[in-house]
Parts: sequence; C-alpha cells; structure tokens
Amino acid sequence: MTTTSSALSPARPAAGQRAGERASHLLEHSRALVRPALAEAIARLHPWVGEMAAYSLGWCEPGGAPVSVPAGGKGLRQALAVLGAEAAGAPRSTGVTAAVAVELVHTFSLLHDDIMDGDPTRRGRPTAWKAYGTGPAVLAGDALFALAVETLAATPGTDIPAAVRHLSTALNDLVRGQADDLLFESRPWTGPEAVRPDEYRAMAEHKTGALLGCATALGAVLADAPRETVAALDRAGRHLGVAFQVVDDLLGIWGDPAVTGKPVHADLLRGKKTFPVLAALGTPAAGPLARLLNSAGSLDPADARRAAALIEDAGGRAAATAEARSHIAAVEACLNDLPRTSDTTRTTRTTHSTHDLRALLDFLVCREM
Amino acid sequence: MTTTSSALSPARPAAGQRAGERASHLLEHSRALVRPALAEAIARLHPWVGEMAAYSLGWCEPGGAPVSVPAGGKGLRQALAVLGAEAAGAPRSTGVTAAVAVELVHTFSLLHDDIMDGDPTRRGRPTAWKAYGTGPAVLAGDALFALAVETLAATPGTDIPAAVRHLSTALNDLVRGQADDLLFESRPWTGPEAVRPDEYRAMAEHKTGALLGCATALGAVLADAPRETVAALDRAGRHLGVAFQVVDDLLGIWGDPAVTGKPVHADLLRGKKTFPVLAALGTPAAGPLARLLNSAGSLDPADARRAAALIEDAGGRAAATAEARSHIAAVEACLNDLPRTSDTTRTTRTTHSTHDLRALLDFLVCREM
Repeated sequence: MTTTSSALSPARPAAGQRAGERASHLLEHSRALVRPALAEAIARLHPWVGEMAAYSLGWCEPGGAPVSVPAGGKGLRQALAVLGAEAAGAPRSTGVTAAVAVELVHTFSLLHDDIMDGDPTRRGRPTAWKAYGTGPAVLAGDALFALAVETLAATPGTDIPAAVRHLSTALNDLVRGQADDLLFESRPWTGPEAVRPDEYRAMAEHKTGALLGCATALGAVLADAPRETVAALDRAGRHLGVAFQVVDDLLGIWGDPAVTGKPVHADLLRGKKTFPVLAALGTPAAGPLARLLNSAGSLDPADARRAAALIEDAGGRAAATAEARSHIAAVEACLNDLPRTSDTTRTTRTTHSTHDLRALLDFLVCREM
Repeated sequence: MTTTSSALSPARPAAGQRAGERASHLLEHSRALVRPALAEAIARLHPWVGEMAAYSLGWCEPGGAPVSVPAGGKGLRQALAVLGAEAAGAPRSTGVTAAVAVELVHTFSLLHDDIMDGDPTRRGRPTAWKAYGTGPAVLAGDALFALAVETLAATPGTDIPAAVRHLSTALNDLVRGQADDLLFESRPWTGPEAVRPDEYRAMAEHKTGALLGCATALGAVLADAPRETVAALDRAGRHLGVAFQVVDDLLGIWGDPAVTGKPVHADLLRGKKTFPVLAALGTPAAGPLARLLNSAGSLDPADARRAAALIEDAGGRAAATAEARSHIAAVEACLNDLPRTSDTTRTTRTTHSTHDLRALLDFLVCREM
C-alpha cells in the first residue's frame, strides 16, 4: 500500500492528492447513499432526542434549524460498511443498514466520550453536552445506541444474530478501550505500573479499531459473505484503527496545527499516554525524557517542546511511524486475502471495492478526514 | 385481583402480608436462580467497569470489597422473566438469559437516570456517579447496555431476532419515557401546554412499563411461546408499570416516609408532574390548587402540605387510586387471557406462574419492594 500521509511520507503530496480525491468522492457517494435511511431512523426517535441526534450528526443547530454549512463528520464508517458489502460481492446498497447502525453507534460514542473527556467543542461547534446539558446528552447517546440495535434487528433477509453479535462485540470492545484510555491517565510514565506498548495497542484496537472493523465486516455480514471474508474485513478495520490512532498521536506532536485543528503539543500538555512517548520511554535513551515527564504534574509549553525533541531523539517518532506502517501493511494483507469466487460479477465488485478501500485507507493516514 | 396496597386499600394488611411472603420467597428464588449467570456476565466486563457494575447491583463497595449487607434491588424484573418463561409452559430456568438481559438493562437505566436526575443516593448508598464520577458512570451504563445485547444475541437455541427486537423496543421506549419525564419538568401546570393525563400514561408506560413488559415477555420468547402469549405478557408488564408509577406518586404524597424511604412531599417540593396533581388540575375544583402551583417558583413545606390537601379535595387522590386499579385490572385480564395448551405439564406451569405473578403484582402495589 502506498502510504501518503504527511506523518508517514511527507514527500509524496501528488499521490496523496489523488487518493484524497478518490476518497472524497467515495465518502460523498456513501453519505448520499446512506443519508435517507439514516434520516428515516433518526425520525423514529423522540423529537427532542432526535434533534440532539441531528445536532450531533451536524445536520442542525440547537433548536432544530438546519445548518447553513454541513457540520458532520466525513462518514468514514458508513463508507466502510457499504464497501464491505461490495467486497463481499454484493451491491453497495446491501450495506446501507450496516452503515446506519455503525454511524448511529459512532455518534453515540462521540456524545458519551465528549462527556467523559470534558471536551467542550467538536468540529468547531459546542459538543452536545455543552449545547443541551450532560443529562440530555447521556440520554441522546443511549437513544442512538438503542436505535442502532433496533435498526439492525429489524433488517429483513439477514443473519440477524450474526449481525447483532458483531455489533455488540464492537460495543463491548469500544467500552473496554474507553475504560483503558481513561485509566491510562492515572498510570505513571515509568516503573512496573507504566503503560506498555502492547497495552496501548489493545486500547487503540478496542477504542478505535473495533467499530471500524465492525463497520467493514457488518456490510459483508448483510451481504451473506462467507465467514473468512467477514473475519478478514473485521481484522482489516481493526488494524486500520490502530494505525489511525498512532498517526493521530504523531500528528498531535509533530502535525501542523493549521491542518490538524488541534493546538500544538496538546497531547503532551495533557500528559496523554501516546504511542511515540511510550515507545521512546522503552528505549535506552529514555532517561532525560523520563526525568522531564516525572518531574512536574503537567508540562508547560516550553517543557512540551523539549519533550517532543527528546521523544524524537530517543526514537519514539520513528518507532511510531514504523508501528503505523506495520498496521497499514496488515490492512493490505487482509484485503489481499479476501476470497474471490468464480462469479465474475461478484469478483469484479470485490476487486473494485478493495481498490476503493485502499484509497480510503490512504486518505485516512493522510489525515484529510 | 386482590389489591392490598396501603395506598389502594389500607384496610387489608393480612392479605398484603400473605402476598408479601409469597412474593419475597419468589424474588429470593429468582435471584438465586439468576445470580450465577448474571455474575458470569459481569465477569466478562473490563475489571474496572465490572466493579462499577457490581457496585450498582449492590454486590460490592467502591474499591471492590464485598458488601457486608446486600444492597441490591429486590430483582423484580428477573423474577418476571423467569415467571414469563413458566407462564409459557417452560421451566423457569429457560428465562434465565432473559432475566440477565433485563437486569443488566435495568441497572444501566438506573446508572444513567441517576446522572440525569442528579440523585446523590440510591438505596441508602451514594449513586455510582457520586462514587466513581460522572464519566465513569456513563461508561459503566454503556457497558451494561452492550452486555445485555451481547448476552441475548449469544443465547443458543433461541429466536434471537425476536428477543433482540423485544429488548431494543423496550430500550427505545425507556429512552422516550425518560425524555418526556425530563421535558415535563419545564411544562406549565395549566393552559394548553400543560401535561395531560394521557401524556403521563404514555410516559409511565414507556419509562417504567416497557422494561417490565419486556422482562415478562422475554422469558416467554426464550420459551418459544406463541405470539399471543408473548403479547399478553408484554401488555401485562406495561400496565403493571403504569400502576406502579401511579402508586409511587400516591405514596410520594400520602405515603409514610418511614416506609417509602422518601422525604415527605418530595415530589410536590420538586414540582413533579405526578398523576394525582394532573388529575386534580383537570377537575372543576382545581382553581385553588392551580393558583397555588402557579404562584411560586417552587413550593415550601407549608405550601406542599396545603397542595396535598387541595389535591385530595379536588379528587386527585381518588382519581389516581382509580387509575392504578384500572391498570391492575388490565394486568389481571392479560393473565387470564394467557392461552392454555392441551399439554398438562405446560398448563400446570402456566397456572402456577400466573398465581405467582399475581402474588408479585400484589406485592408491588403493596410497595414492599
């Protein structure tokens, strides 16, 4: 796979732009395909709860007035779901219910995560708990969660037990990852209680990878795909999640704030246990970094600049880049492993969708999402 | 059905005591039957999240040490689930997975409701958000929700789609009822925007009845019961929920604080839209009550005493008692309508379970739960 991220290979802007264009088109196409069913699901909610859901999806302002500028996410998970159906040889439309379910779960998790993390803004707007209050935002998240399960359980002509099992496994993993992420905050930087890179990987796979894996696999489940196809797509999404999280960490330290939208060194200032730091702390050159991190309750901007340099000197940046690359290679391997049938139409769809999935993955690590 | 509630017919303590003993035995038996599977499910959670879940179930103290005195609920919903299976002619053990699922959902809803309502204590202990923080309590609720779906979706030999649909419908109703309950707070007492009794009924059915209906019906779904049996049990549970909520309202105004555990006139002081008040406001004698309620932002204890008298004078207490009775009669009718088969073993079970369900219902309106 050609990785074109500025974080991973900043020298290839042209390839990045091509992948970005294809991916943008794909995301737009998926959003258009999924939107009617998603809107229909949201319309089944209690009107007040539905408004909070629509606000969280970026469709309206508080009070319910339509937004003048769309404020939603790119819809990566819904794109993965429709491409997952296509990867299993079915038309993209087969994955629409899966797309609705994962988009609802994703929105639920953002709503509740913003409460847990105390984040006041998302995508340049007040978070739901800021706009509507904590209690209502908890309730809106619960409603989206229930709606996702209901939507999936009502899909005709589907292996509903398998679909619901996939979704609930992802939900359990998501909670597990969020719990570990919260607990990491109070763990020390060094010593036997320090967070190990393998603990980070498990956290990232659960917190970010599980729902990406579920999205990709669930489309294939609805397309009645063989077990190996579903498993390969789930694995692909999980590796993608870890890669995505590590790239996010890299950009949080060395990314351009104008591009990432995050303040410079925000993760270092918050004392977040990101992969580059953990990797650096595991090297023989970790001494000065460990002393800096252990010396203060929290870093000031000058400390954070020094920490960034020490992490790079100790090899943390290179290790994180290698880590992201290895997960991207694993995604590649999963896509290459997708079974092909003798049915030409199905095989053409599979081939087409794997190209599109690759474009999306490139786009993801490009951080243009 | 012989109603023996102090709120409904205070003159029949002996019948109430007999129903109470039978119901206590039943609840204890159900808890013992369900506990191993419930504990096994909780053990699958992330350890920290599992501790919060165990705390919320009254099994441990914050930190994880076992409680010296059990601090959990009576386990009404799990009893309804195993009796629901029996009502469908199956052994009670058939309903155990349903019992686990509804108990997990019930615990989830208490966790999140306590956050939404800002309640600092439950059953004499700090609520989970007070003991662990709001964010962790949100997360623990989410985990229980996901675990409930996962547990149900993994039940072998079951109509999983039907079971999951029942659960997700109840969850959606529960959220809808909670939303309405929250919105009722800011509605006026009088005028076209006032809460109507039928809106109250819908709120109570959703908020309280849906999960009781789901509990009773889900046991029957797992017992492969005919559609009419499942529907009758669901309706019974929903009527029970409304009756339960109205009795709760009656006890909130005229109950003995030593028995109810709630401060005297708490609902009136909080300005809660309870059924006796709404019923009183709908009568020709509502004038003085309406003026009192509309006169102040919130009532002081002397106002609350006066309001209680005015509600009673206007017929609100009698109307609420009649309302509860009518829903109890509806529960009765649902139980009488349960189909009997020619299979003696199954019919004996159905008869036995309906007797037990009646004892539980009596116990419920006795408010000894």
